[in-house]
Amino acid sequence: MSVTVVGSVAFDSLETPFGSRERILGGAATHFSVAASFFTDVRVVGVVGEDFGDDEFAVFRSRGIDTTDLQQVPGGRSFHWTGRYEDDMNVAHTVDTQLNVFADFDPQLSESARSSRIVFLANILPALQLQVREQCSDAMLTGLDSMNFWIESERDALTAAIRAVDCVVLNDAEVRMYTGEPNMAKAARQLLALGPRVLLMKQGVYGACMVTAESFFSVPAYPLETVVDPTGAGDSFAGGFFGYLDSLEKSELDDQDLRQAVVYGSVMASFVVEEFGNERLQRLTEDEIHERFDEFREMTVFEPPVRATTR
Amino acid sequence: MSVTVVGSVAFDSLETPFGSRERILGGAATHFSVAASFFTDVRVVGVVGEDFGDDEFAVFRSRGIDTTDLQQVPGGRSFHWTGRYEDDMNVAHTVDTQLNVFADFDPQLSESARSSRIVFLANILPALQLQVREQCSDAMLTGLDSMNFWIESERDALTAAIRAVDCVVLNDAEVRMYTGEPNMAKAARQLLALGPRVLLMKQGVYGACMVTAESFFSVPAYPLETVVDPTGAGDSFAGGFFGYLDSLEKSELDDQDLRQAVVYGSVMASFVVEEFGNERLQRLTEDEIHERFDEFREMTVFEPPVRATTR
Repeated sequence: MSVTVVGSVAFDSLETPFGSRERILGGAATHFSVAASFFTDVRVVGVVGEDFGDDEFAVFRSRGIDTTDLQQVPGGRSFHWTGRYEDDMNVAHTVDTQLNVFADFDPQLSESARSSRIVFLANILPALQLQVREQCSDAMLTGLDSMNFWIESERDALTAAIRAVDCVVLNDAEVRMYTGEPNMAKAARQLLALGPRVLLMKQGVYGACMVTAESFFSVPAYPLETVVDPTGAGDSFAGGFFGYLDSLEKSELDDQDLRQAVVYGSVMASFVVEEFGNERLQRLTEDEIHERFDEFREMTVFEPPVRATTR
Repeated sequence: MSVTVVGSVAFDSLETPFGSRERILGGAATHFSVAASFFTDVRVVGVVGEDFGDDEFAVFRSRGIDTTDLQQVPGGRSFHWTGRYEDDMNVAHTVDTQLNVFADFDPQLSESARSSRIVFLANILPALQLQVREQCSDAMLTGLDSMNFWIESERDALTAAIRAVDCVVLNDAEVRMYTGEPNMAKAARQLLALGPRVLLMKQGVYGACMVTAESFFSVPAYPLETVVDPTGAGDSFAGGFFGYLDSLEKSELDDQDLRQAVVYGSVMASFVVEEFGNERLQRLTEDEIHERFDEFREMTVFEPPVRATTR
């Protein structure tokens, strides 16, 4: 079993109230694949420049991630995002974006990347997401992420991509923006009407919810006292979600499988933000993941009342 | 057993995207007491004018709420709030505030109001909250609500009131504002350090969380497709919370009691916003409350994994 993720593999330069980092390994596909690698085999599809060195490849290798489809362009430079977070860590301020080799990203998947049971289309040009989706026609489960920029500039292509996947991962502001509907429950229903079976709505410090035709499920964010760097939280969430689902090796996923996957996604997101980039995930252990999963149960469980209480 | 609530009893004139109402029964103590009345006996302490008529008193009477301490000022006019909600129903826009008799509110509680086991100090001048708190020295459980206005203008008195109660009910923006700490978990810890045992943090469409020294508990908001009028959601939440706790008739409340109470609070808040004012609660049934409580369990429950999933 394996998961294929297509998206950015990049350098990030970051400044947060807790410090800064220059050109650390980042990108949506990186965060997704490192998180998913704790659960299953992962293949990463992306493009990097000649500046992408042994240290960067080693991060993928150390997690057993297959980089066969991580194309390196001779003489090219990797995608480089420079961002800043202020006191409200929910808002990323982009200082500079150098797309570099990512501007001409034209993913052609290898046979093995195409054969994964699960394919996640991280936040890239919607037309590319659709093109990759068509290359993976046998995938059992497909998902995509997107962003406000594509909602505004590539709405039709994004709609086509949404129609072609099983699972949409967006934050709630994006869902409201895409549907034009301020009410979250209505907005979710409108989005699902396009075809996806599952909507994962990320809500930042408030957690996440999953909406399907049959079920609404909500999980809070882990109440961290220190969020050092929120970059990659959403992609690590998706990585934990799809990685866990793949690890089940089931041909049919039920509502409880999906719910557990949402919690594993939340667990992975809660770890990644504890330190810069994926520093925290590089020394994360299986026991820590299980412990935090249990803490999520602790945070949300309540008993039915023992007797009639109203009058 | 009974709960006493002290606060505003008022007329509200409201405009929302779903319609408008002129001079309907409102006020924090009204919403609290109607919600709490589904669980236990309630005594409301407040002041109204001569314009407060039989129809208004009948709402309290129909719910069995004791209005002995609802003082009526001859020749006076009742507190009248005029507000508007736009597409973002999380934000109330105040059009006009006529304090009227509420400006001179000086609550002197009757013997029976003082003897309630639970006392809730709805959002009023913090110095008055403290004065009422002192009148109810035997209360088993006390709580207060407040608002941004008092946080800015009456900070020291509010701090004194917070120190004097067991349970603080605020929305998350207010907690951040009061503590000056943007991180919710840190802000909660700072607030609890002042003395209260329980912090209930309301989070609007995202639900609510409860923080104690030992425990963090979170519950989502009920995903309503139509919120007609958000007025009173927070006070109905508090009413359901304290009303349920009183109904337990226990001398010691444990974490599970408090969690169930948070859910009952969320249930009552989810009903009140379905229609204007307390129209929905006037025809709410016990069965509907239990059903929605069960739906909250449905929305939040997930199983532990059946096998080791990470690697």
